[in-house]
Parts: sequence; C-alpha cells; structure tokens
Amino acid sequence: MRRIVVVGGVAGGMSAATRLRRLDEEASITVLERSGHVSFANCGLPYHLGGVIEKRSSLLLQTPESLAARFAIDVRVHHEVRAIDREHRRVSVRDLATDESFELGYDALVLSPGARPVVPNLPGMSVAHTLRDIEDLDHLVAAARDVEAAVVIGGGFIGVEVAENLVHRGIPVTLVEATDQVMAPLDPEMVEPVHDALRAAGVQLVLGASVERIEPAHVTATTLDDGTVATAVGVPVVHLSDGRALPAGLVVAAIGVRPERALAEEAGLAIGERGGILVDEQLRTSDPAIFAVGDAVEKHDGLDASSVLVPLANTANRQGRVVADVIVGRPGADRPVLGTAIVGVFGVAAAAVGWNEKRLRAAGRPHRVLHTHPGSHAGYYPGAETIALKLLVDPDTDAILGAQAVGRDGIDKRIDVIATAMTGGLTAGELADLELAYAPQFGSAKDPVNMLGWVDRAVADGDVETVQWHELGAALAAGATLVDVRSPAEHAARPIPGGVNVPVDDLRARMDELPDGPLVVHCEVGLRGYVAARLLAQHGREVRNLDGGYRTWRAGTAATHVAEEVSAPA
Amino acid sequence: MRRIVVVGGVAGGMSAATRLRRLDEEASITVLERSGHVSFANCGLPYHLGGVIEKRSSLLLQTPESLAARFAIDVRVHHEVRAIDREHRRVSVRDLATDESFELGYDALVLSPGARPVVPNLPGMSVAHTLRDIEDLDHLVAAARDVEAAVVIGGGFIGVEVAENLVHRGIPVTLVEATDQVMAPLDPEMVEPVHDALRAAGVQLVLGASVERIEPAHVTATTLDDGTVATAVGVPVVHLSDGRALPAGLVVAAIGVRPERALAEEAGLAIGERGGILVDEQLRTSDPAIFAVGDAVEKHDGLDASSVLVPLANTANRQGRVVADVIVGRPGADRPVLGTAIVGVFGVAAAAVGWNEKRLRAAGRPHRVLHTHPGSHAGYYPGAETIALKLLVDPDTDAILGAQAVGRDGIDKRIDVIATAMTGGLTAGELADLELAYAPQFGSAKDPVNMLGWVDRAVADGDVETVQWHELGAALAAGATLVDVRSPAEHAARPIPGGVNVPVDDLRARMDELPDGPLVVHCEVGLRGYVAARLLAQHGREVRNLDGGYRTWRAGTAATHVAEEVSAPA
Repeated sequence: MRRIVVVGGVAGGMSAATRLRRLDEEASITVLERSGHVSFANCGLPYHLGGVIEKRSSLLLQTPESLAARFAIDVRVHHEVRAIDREHRRVSVRDLATDESFELGYDALVLSPGARPVVPNLPGMSVAHTLRDIEDLDHLVAAARDVEAAVVIGGGFIGVEVAENLVHRGIPVTLVEATDQVMAPLDPEMVEPVHDALRAAGVQLVLGASVERIEPAHVTATTLDDGTVATAVGVPVVHLSDGRALPAGLVVAAIGVRPERALAEEAGLAIGERGGILVDEQLRTSDPAIFAVGDAVEKHDGLDASSVLVPLANTANRQGRVVADVIVGRPGADRPVLGTAIVGVFGVAAAAVGWNEKRLRAAGRPHRVLHTHPGSHAGYYPGAETIALKLLVDPDTDAILGAQAVGRDGIDKRIDVIATAMTGGLTAGELADLELAYAPQFGSAKDPVNMLGWVDRAVADGDVETVQWHELGAALAAGATLVDVRSPAEHAARPIPGGVNVPVDDLRARMDELPDGPLVVHCEVGLRGYVAARLLAQHGREVRNLDGGYRTWRAGTAATHVAEEVSAPA
Repeated sequence: MRRIVVVGGVAGGMSAATRLRRLDEEASITVLERSGHVSFANCGLPYHLGGVIEKRSSLLLQTPESLAARFAIDVRVHHEVRAIDREHRRVSVRDLATDESFELGYDALVLSPGARPVVPNLPGMSVAHTLRDIEDLDHLVAAARDVEAAVVIGGGFIGVEVAENLVHRGIPVTLVEATDQVMAPLDPEMVEPVHDALRAAGVQLVLGASVERIEPAHVTATTLDDGTVATAVGVPVVHLSDGRALPAGLVVAAIGVRPERALAEEAGLAIGERGGILVDEQLRTSDPAIFAVGDAVEKHDGLDASSVLVPLANTANRQGRVVADVIVGRPGADRPVLGTAIVGVFGVAAAAVGWNEKRLRAAGRPHRVLHTHPGSHAGYYPGAETIALKLLVDPDTDAILGAQAVGRDGIDKRIDVIATAMTGGLTAGELADLELAYAPQFGSAKDPVNMLGWVDRAVADGDVETVQWHELGAALAAGATLVDVRSPAEHAARPIPGGVNVPVDDLRARMDELPDGPLVVHCEVGLRGYVAARLLAQHGREVRNLDGGYRTWRAGTAATHVAEEVSAPA
C-alpha cells in the first residue's frame, strides 16, 4: 500500500489527492492543511468581502468530511508540517488545535504550500490585512465593519478586486500603486479603461507613489468638565512617498505573493532562481520521493522556457493531476505556461496571455505590435461594447507572443481564443482564417480575432507600415506630416496636435493638398487610416498609419502624462 | 488597367471589391447588385422584424455613394446580370429601374450571387414570405402588421430567429418542422433546451409534420338587412401532413437555401455535386477568368475535404479576400470549412462546429462521444448557467471531429475555443491543458473546455468505459444493473426507471449490496458516476458510466418520445 502525504489542501494539493484516489483505491492518502479549510474558492474571497457572493459557505467547496466520504482521503485541517525527514521519509506534524506533534511516514510526499502575500517590512505595517485564505477573509470582513476609509496597497489582481469589493460595502477606498499603472500584465496604453473604471466608481487612485510607513491609531485623552478623562481611538494614517497622509481604518496589503518555500528550503530541497521550489518535468523536487505543485514551484515559460512564477489556479490544478499520474507510474509531464489571466473590476474586464510589450522590450526580443478597437459584436445589433485589443507578434516567424484585451464585453472569449491559438501553434496571420461562431448578438462576420489576423497580414505583407503611439512624436519631429483622415467633426472633437484634416473619402480628390515628404495618417481606431495609407502608398507617397489610431495614442499619452505628473516634484 | 466586374454586392462580393481597391488603386471595379441594397447586414434582418434592431438604416452598412467615395467602386444596385459572354469576356446587364440593357467587359469576373431561399412547390405556397434581403424584410414587416397568427415553416437558423422576432412583435407563432427537431446541426439530445425555450416563449412547436398545402384566404360575402353585401377577407390556412389546419395571416418559408447558380450554369460553368458553383483552391470556376465566392460555391469540408454547402458570412468574407489576392496575382488559397455556427433564441444559445453524431453515423465514421453539463462560470459566484456540451472525437487519433454547446451563457466562447483548437490541430485530450482566462465571473479554474479534455483522456486511457443515453436500454436488457449514485432525494425526484440507488459517498461501505454481473452507474451529469465507476472498477467490478448522466439521458429520451408521438397515427 502506497503512503502518500500531501501538504496543502487547496487547488494543486487537493487535485492531486482526489486524482490519486481515482487511480489507486488502495493507497493511504493524507492531506495536511495548516489553515482551517481545504478546497476553498481562493479566487472568490474578495467577492464575499463585497457581498457579491453572499454566503461564506459558498466558498467552501469541500470539507474534510465530504472528502473522506467520497474519496477516503484523510484530511486534517489545522495541521502544520514543521519539518521533513528525507532520510526516513517522514514529516513532523503539529496539530495546531491540540498543539500536539507527531510524525507521519510517506512513500511519496506532495508539497502544495502555495504562495504567501508579500508584506513590506515598513513601520506600522503590522496593521495591514492580507487576503489569502478563509481566516484572512474572516478577519477582513470583521475589520471592515464601521470603517470610514480604507487604503489598499497594490494594484494587482487582488488589489483591484479588494478595492472594488470595499466600494461595494460603501467604504471609500484609496488604491496606492507604486508603479504608474495597475494590472502589471497590461501595457500602459491598455490599462486606461481600468483606471477610468476605478476612478468612475469613486476609488481614489494614487499611482507612482509608495507607502513609507503607517502611523498607528492615536489615542486622544480629553479631560472633561467633571474631571473625568474621555479617550478616543483614532485611525491609522498611511504616509506615502509623495507626502500624502491617508487616514484609514482599514489597510489591505495586496502587493503580490511569493512562494511558500520555507519547509522545502529547510529540508534542503533545491530552490530555483525565482525563489520557487525547483521541480523537473515530472514535478519531482531534488528529492525523488518529494514532489511539489502549484504557486510554490517555478514553472517554465511558454515562450522561452525560462523559469517563471505563475500563481494561477488553472496551472495548480493541472499540476495536481500530473503529479498524481507520475506517482502511480503513469506517463505525465508538466507543461510550459502562458499565464492567461483576467480580472473584472466595475464592469470592465482586462485579460492577457503570453508576454506584454514591456517584457519583450526588456528582453530585447523583436516584436510587431498591433492595436485594434473592434466592437464586442456586430455594431448594427444593440449593446455592442468597444474592445481594446493588442497583439504582439514575432516579426520573423509570425508567432503570437502575447495579447491583451480590455473592455466591457467579450474580453474573456477573445483572450481564450488567442490563448488556444498560441497553444495550437497558429500564427498571427492564421487568426484571420478562424471560423468563429457568428450571429449578431455574439460576434461579427469578421470577428475581432479575425481582424487581428488581417491587420497582422497587412503589416507582414508590407501593405502598410505603422507608427506606434509612442513613436509618433519622433516621426513628426523627423519631418513627417500628420494627416487625420477622420471627419472634420471628429478632428475638431478629438485632435492629435499638429495634424491636418483630410477625410479619407476626400483623399483622392484632395491629394494635392498634402505637403511633400513622409506622411503619417491616422483615424479613430486605425481602419480608415489603413485604407488611406493603401491609397496614398499606391499613389507613390511615403506613408505610415498610426497603429490603433487616435484611441491608442490617447490612451498611451494619457498614461504617460499620469506618469509625468506623479514623478514631477510636488 | 484591370477591369473587374463583381456580381452581387453583399459579403463575399463586397469584401472582394474593397480588398481589390486596397490592392489596386488603378483597377476599374464595378459591382452589380440585383436588389436595391449592397453590404447590408444579412444576419440582422430577423432582428429588425422583431424591433430588436430598431432602425432599418442600421442594417445598411454601406451605400453605393459611400463605396464610391471611399473606394472608387462603381456600385450599381437594381442591376441584374442576365448572361455571361465568356468568349468576349463581357456580361449582359439589365438596369431594372429603367429596363435598359447594356454590356460590360471584364478581365476578371467575380460571381457572388449568394443563395436563394428554398420554397417548396406546393399549392398555395406563393403567399409565403421568405427573408433574404432588405426588400424581403420590407415586405415581411408590412405583412406582419395586424396579423393574428403566423406560421413559420422550417426550424433552421432563420426559422427560429423569425419565430422569435414575430413573438417579439406580439404575434402568436406556430413553427412547423418536418424532422423531429429544430436546428439540424445539433444532435437530438442537445436540442431540447432550444425546444423548451421556444415553447416557454409561447411558440407552438410542430415537429415531424410537414406542410401539404396552403389554402388561400376565403372571401365571405354577407347580405345585410338593408340589402347591401359586406365582404370579409379571411386568412390563409396552412394544412399539415398530420391533419392540422392552421389559420395564418402570415406564412414565412425558412426551409433552407440553395446556391444561386442559374447564371453560372447558363454560362456553362461547371456545377458541383451539391449544386453549387465548382471552384478550385484559387476560387476559379471552370473558366479561368471567372471566379466565384460565398454561398453560391461548393466548399471543402474541414474533416474529409468532401464538397459541402456552407452558407455563412464569415466564409463568404474570407473568400472575398482570397479572390482579390488571386486576381492581383498574390498567393491566396481557399481553406476547408468547419462551419462554426450559432443561434440565439429567447436567451438560449446553441452553437456547433464540425460534424455532429448524426453525420458521423451516416458516414460510418468511428467516433467517441462525450457529454458534460458544466456551469458557465464558477458555481460559487452568482449567475452561473448550466451548459450542455458535447464533443465528438476520433477514437484512433483523438482528433476533435465536432462539438455542440447549448445554454444561456458562455456558449459562443466554448465553441470558439474548440473551433480554434480544431484549426490548430489540438487533440481532444489537449483541451485539458489549455490555459483559459479564469476569474469566477468568467469561467472556472477547471474550465468546461478543460473538463472535456479530462473526460476524453479518462475514456481514451481506459479509466472509464461509458454508455451513451441511447445504449442504456440495450445494456440493461443484456443484464446490467443500473446504479444511481446520486442522493436519495435526487433519485426520487428524477429517476431513470429500473435503477437502484447507492449514493457515491456510501459506495465503499455498501458495495456488497450490488448484485453480481455488469453494472451501469449514473449520476446527474456524469461526474459522480465517473468517481463511482473508478471505485468499482478498482474493486474488480465490470462497470460503465452513463455518459452525461441523467440529464443527457433525459434530453435524449425526451427527444425520442417526441419523435414517437408525432410519428404515431393521430
């Protein structure tokens, strides 16, 4: 009889345990979980805080009892593994309820300890809440009662979700993010709709400033007329690098997570360059009897196979299944990760897959950039929402390197389709030929994903040359003339400074008006600009089209202006 | 200067014309359109009938004027091409407005005549409306005023959309479909939610009966007391094969479409086995100067390369672009079609890609069938809807042969992802590893598409053997015992006749209660059944799991019962 011990009863750990039972009815399977809950809905925690998920019990997908009944798994909550005795293949366990310790032998040990929230070592930070498990949630829900203002530190997935849900509770929120934007997976020109949604919902967004310290709540004592002393407890004050002081009855730190590797490290298991537990393709650690899965391990990037930390539930579950297969002797191999992810905030969804432009630039990897702004479904059918789409493409192979989508409808679908195309090895140009389900309430005869493929082909085939939003200034400085091919009304309402206006439909007749020399054409989203660029190029003009049109330029420069404002001295 | 004439100004034809202009500024491009409109939103026509698309003008995406201004295309509506003089490369054109004729020479001719609605040759059928273009829509809208009852003949895409939109207008509708189900792309056990949605919205659904004749409206004359004669015009009566007589002030025929091939045929161009214009990979007809695109041409099936008719806008647009590339001398090749399609009716969406089981069986092609019933997003987040999913897989190669999805949310996304996986050559098992965007309002950590992959692997790896809903009777007749592993409450509420009830969580303890011999286990959707089957198989029992559980069985047998009822003598 195989003895399997699993450390950590959420996502990867529990996927491994249940899969193991389905594969081996005879095995002894023990799951040790430090917290009081297993198989809880990690990704749902912020939504109970905000009351979107009304019942706390909805988050508890399984209990030790249900797992015992169905899978004959011995699940022990409030049990912490303190040490691994690799030589004798046993773990030291502390029952946190009774404070008793015992040892447990294993033939295979699966580590699924997850990741823990990063809390910076700054004065007063101990008052900050984090949100990782049900216990954290309970504390946070209790602390959020009768709070007049909250500060959320960090604009990642958890940060924006917590900010949204505190607003749902009626609590004014300030979101403090040290970089110039929330949602790091998005490039700056893509994130503006998220910033706008946060601000429109009343979140005070502080970008480019960091927390320096948290001043504890002051207790003020007042001597009353009758000689008694009344005391009043104030609220902590969050002091920022820009000099602001934000009183906050509630502070939530959502800066990021880091692999929970202490147990593995103390046992002498190899740790990778990113600080996660190092595993091979079969998810074996440097000890062949010990496996590790989930947020705690380093994964391999889907594009360049480098070590990456990708704390996502999908990946953790997948690894849990693989490790079960490997333990029972089946073929099983971990796969590289694309890191597809999505967040919803106040009705806006933002999703990404693969690498973003920031990362490609940092790595010096050549890339082609495409921006589009299609409707979520046919424009003639009511309710279509604009999607901001970005595709990053290898200019040599036409391979898709990454994609981003932001908007109020159809975001998840487009990113899922592109993620699937990446996994299937389709090139960017081949997106044009995908047959996607079309009826006017669901998409377009030329779906946004098809359009990306066509835009890519136009650039790849040399039919059009593009200028990116951040390249426009240099192009104009080098002597190019900017031609706005939108209507006069559009030009007047939303101009790019320095442009002349010749509507695309007048272009053949008015071509002589354009000055000699190189041209940059632009429209609202890039489509009329493309038509104009084709026309002008065929008439012998040197012309480039502003990629993504006015909208991408506007979003990009708005993001840059924010950055400049906050970095300027106050 | 290249002279290009395009016959037909919608979808494929107009895609070809505009792409040609972008590639060749010098060409003479003439588009001849028989109706009064080009580039109209074909797929939106039913929704203006129902007022969902309020303005008729929303359907008119381009006009001859806008196309002249932007693309310098000579677009002539109300112009019918009567004949092609292939020898002299010119077409005979009739201006339907003036009734004058003229000839027009071409270097390349592009035929994009589309498909025309099938109207059966039955007595009285001339009163029936069809819905193909704006003129049809205008007639239909006018005829739908003051109508007390309507009959829609045919339960395909257009039929159900017209039925829905007539209900939106407040008109009682009977939908008559000659086969046992609407939406032929779906297999019978998948279509029940569509039938239910139609019935719940008040549509009288008549399946398995056909129209035999339409009795014209009677005029009754009554002599009044004062000697004058009053006449009253009744309504036509639709007589069905089952003896029913349905009075209907409005009759719409939506039986299907057939390629508009007369012009090509009369010009001696080759016609294919399915009745469409025959074209090669460059969309050339049997005359190298004549090309054809869209609904009028035969396409190649994505699975077996056989000739197929796939009248979809996406495909037509794609062919329009290819033909433009070919005409200007660029590489361009038509691609096989998967035929991805979707329909929405009263909030239920039904979508399909590839082959269905009916077609696989008819072709004698081996296939593995999987049914699942996942939630559209995480069950712990409010608003999740159940999706009925079906996957058809090649048992030898694990290639995906087709998929169907029906439900109220997330249908288009799952079919688009599977269509993309098919195009990318991913196997069914590889669906398990797709990284799909997950936050609880958008999906699940184990997305429904991932789950399909896991279910496929379980069958492919021999971990579980399944019984399909239509095989259950034979399995039980052969001596298998049916074990319902749901809770007693579920068993009592929704039983499959003949089953014994042992909940999955009691199975280890109560295994001795099960009689000897082969077992079939089932639960509600197939998941607990799978767990039970794994358990029992490891204890040495011969066991199969009812694929898709009670729900698929119920839907399949309900569909069959309907078929039996209607085929029984009245």
